Amino acid sequence: MTSLHEHAPAGQQPPADRPVALQPLPAGVRRTVLPSGLRIVTEHVAGVRSAAIGVWIGVGSAHESPALHGGSHFLEHVLFKGTDTRSALDISVQLDEVGAEVNAFTAKEYTCFHARVLDTDVPLAIDVLGDMLTSSSITDEDVEAEREVILDEIAMHDDDPDDVVHNLFAEQAWGDTPYGRPIAGTETSIAALTAEQVREFWRAHYTAPGIVVSAAGNVDHDEVVRLVAAAFDRRGFLDRTADPVAAPLLHAPARPAVQDVRAGTIVAERGFEQVNVVLGRRGLARGDERRFAMGILTTGLGGGTSSRLFQEVRERRGLAYSVYAFTTQHVGAGLVGVGVGVLPSKVDATLDVVRRELETVAERGLDADEVRRGAGQLRAGLVMGLEDTASRMHRLGKAEIVGDRLLDVDAVIARIDAVTPEDVAALAAEVLRGPEVLAVVRPG
Amino acid sequence: MTSLHEHAPAGQQPPADRPVALQPLPAGVRRTVLPSGLRIVTEHVAGVRSAAIGVWIGVGSAHESPALHGGSHFLEHVLFKGTDTRSALDISVQLDEVGAEVNAFTAKEYTCFHARVLDTDVPLAIDVLGDMLTSSSITDEDVEAEREVILDEIAMHDDDPDDVVHNLFAEQAWGDTPYGRPIAGTETSIAALTAEQVREFWRAHYTAPGIVVSAAGNVDHDEVVRLVAAAFDRRGFLDRTADPVAAPLLHAPARPAVQDVRAGTIVAERGFEQVNVVLGRRGLARGDERRFAMGILTTGLGGGTSSRLFQEVRERRGLAYSVYAFTTQHVGAGLVGVGVGVLPSKVDATLDVVRRELETVAERGLDADEVRRGAGQLRAGLVMGLEDTASRMHRLGKAEIVGDRLLDVDAVIARIDAVTPEDVAALAAEVLRGPEVLAVVRPG
Repeated sequence: MTSLHEHAPAGQQPPADRPVALQPLPAGVRRTVLPSGLRIVTEHVAGVRSAAIGVWIGVGSAHESPALHGGSHFLEHVLFKGTDTRSALDISVQLDEVGAEVNAFTAKEYTCFHARVLDTDVPLAIDVLGDMLTSSSITDEDVEAEREVILDEIAMHDDDPDDVVHNLFAEQAWGDTPYGRPIAGTETSIAALTAEQVREFWRAHYTAPGIVVSAAGNVDHDEVVRLVAAAFDRRGFLDRTADPVAAPLLHAPARPAVQDVRAGTIVAERGFEQVNVVLGRRGLARGDERRFAMGILTTGLGGGTSSRLFQEVRERRGLAYSVYAFTTQHVGAGLVGVGVGVLPSKVDATLDVVRRELETVAERGLDADEVRRGAGQLRAGLVMGLEDTASRMHRLGKAEIVGDRLLDVDAVIARIDAVTPEDVAALAAEVLRGPEVLAVVRPG
Repeated sequence: MTSLHEHAPAGQQPPADRPVALQPLPAGVRRTVLPSGLRIVTEHVAGVRSAAIGVWIGVGSAHESPALHGGSHFLEHVLFKGTDTRSALDISVQLDEVGAEVNAFTAKEYTCFHARVLDTDVPLAIDVLGDMLTSSSITDEDVEAEREVILDEIAMHDDDPDDVVHNLFAEQAWGDTPYGRPIAGTETSIAALTAEQVREFWRAHYTAPGIVVSAAGNVDHDEVVRLVAAAFDRRGFLDRTADPVAAPLLHAPARPAVQDVRAGTIVAERGFEQVNVVLGRRGLARGDERRFAMGILTTGLGGGTSSRLFQEVRERRGLAYSVYAFTTQHVGAGLVGVGVGVLPSKVDATLDVVRRELETVAERGLDADEVRRGAGQLRAGLVMGLEDTASRMHRLGKAEIVGDRLLDVDAVIARIDAVTPEDVAALAAEVLRGPEVLAVVRPG
């Protein structure tokens, strides 16, 4: 049995090698920090019979040294391959028979294993996730089998124009840094990773202080805490700190290197019919207070059918079916950009229109009407998005793992509504000017 | 003002040229048939602040003559281009400023325009949708501008391996019939469609008896009925029946021709890295009572990580990242198949494994454990799926437009639980044997 304390007093240091700044939480969200430093955040949602559960680990591809490129994602795959007490098939059978929707994803700064289940199956889901995270066998055979699957996955992403152009855009912007490399690794890096490296990666990074469990839906906080404490109390996991052999890998996300974005053009040739383009510049880092203005700026540029780019590129000129603006936010760096897919004959005209719109908005910002409309879109998207338990779980877990302050919905809406046309204009003048980063995937 | 009658007495003929068999409804779902024959079905969902609304038209690509190939989808696009009182930009601005998520899709047997909005914006969403459906201008200029966008959309789908291989599979199975052709048309058919043909298509098919409005979320049935009656009461739309000039197009989905599925192999070469394969056979038509057994059969074959194909293809042999089983159901015809994406060197081994598994299941069916597990997956998926208002709206509208009986959740679960291993074995023996339909998209 593990004793628990909830709502750690302000200023208390979690008993961990990794400093965790506990942020205040909105009403309705509860947090418990286990003595080991593992954090649990939950939110009860009325009127549903299901729950979404996520296990978040504060490590992703940006923490990999070049020799371990693709290691976070490789490990994420291998943890499904069986534990001391469950084979891979046992895991699959136990989850499938209750219809659990279970999967995982690896990002640049974190990894998440998640499950959506009927409320009655929360204990099973937490037990299986805890077992996978703490007690996976990670045998040489598992690593070899999964190496093949990951190469297939990389090949599948290589056939997706959107994945190819966005990887290329990050590569141009951030070069051969941890943020510039594709999350899944490359054929070469995956071929080179050894089983021992994968195990070392687990020992180094999968420790209680770097793990957050988030749950939303028909869940009771105290019950979730008890289940998590039991499920992770295996193989001495909760007492274990990072393996000193692998510890130097921790906290190496090369942040200074990625604040500077490399302008320039990168081109790849593939067998697609359309030309896919992403054009952008340096954006905002995670947690930047201007993110609400950025949301309105990108919405006005390319976030709805009334947006500048949709109107100019698709409605007025019929140049493309899909055109959109986006932002990417990491701890110390971010990007802002526009993505579009066009027929080869329309590339030049499309780039002209996109650049002209960006220049106009950089000079004059958005109209008051556009700012108001952008705020309306963000508000409604927020409220409707939170009707889904998986979105709520994701919001809780991601904020906790990256150290962002989780705001309640009304506070977010207040900040959205507080954005003025001047705020948007100032931001646009800063981020939409200057040398651009351009990624182009064209028919070979 | 339009007077309404709710719950049309059994046996009453709707005042329409198109026979509508009104199916009994589950508790909690309400239906109103307007005097014009337009049907409205709603379901109130507690605890949400949003609503999903769909306008369903009982016409899709399967109703097109060869000369009109792609016409349903073309019209779906053009209806966003402006009405008597709203320009395309007005439509976009009014919907964006309340953050409405609005889109449309065209299927082989129906077309759907849908919106997800905060509950306070239901009146606006219904008014805009009614305006678009009844009063679009459909000018020559709109048709020309949208022709370009549709060609871009077709090119985009041509760059998606999954879209390409599924279109090819339908082409091999059903040949040059309305069900065998791609929904969006081809470059040639889109180039040939005239603005007058698009207008005729609207006059012929967009009439009240062939339209269903479905809504789910925080909605009041009577209020939705009043809003729909007002929104569609434009340009005499509710009194209009099919234009006799275009009427012969109605009811021409070539059903007898598609009951027979053409065995054989079809191959296309594209610039992808992976080989994408769909292998299948004739399945069940919509409404077939064996669809519950089919759900369990395809789940056991390739519906979860414990399924036969996932275990044999991915887990044991590392041949592919993605492998799955699927079914397609139309009014008079259906398909069942397996999809997989593999590296070229693994195609033969993968096809061997897939065929062997299908043969084994055709001979012996699934184990009792697999049937029980498949039922668990279907039950949980059903319950969790219905927590989303858009899924509920979709379920209501689709059943009503195709004439399926909508069952309540408990009735569906009872039918799933009633499926026996013998039912699955009998179905597998029928549908998994015999000459196969094979579609292959390989690097050129």
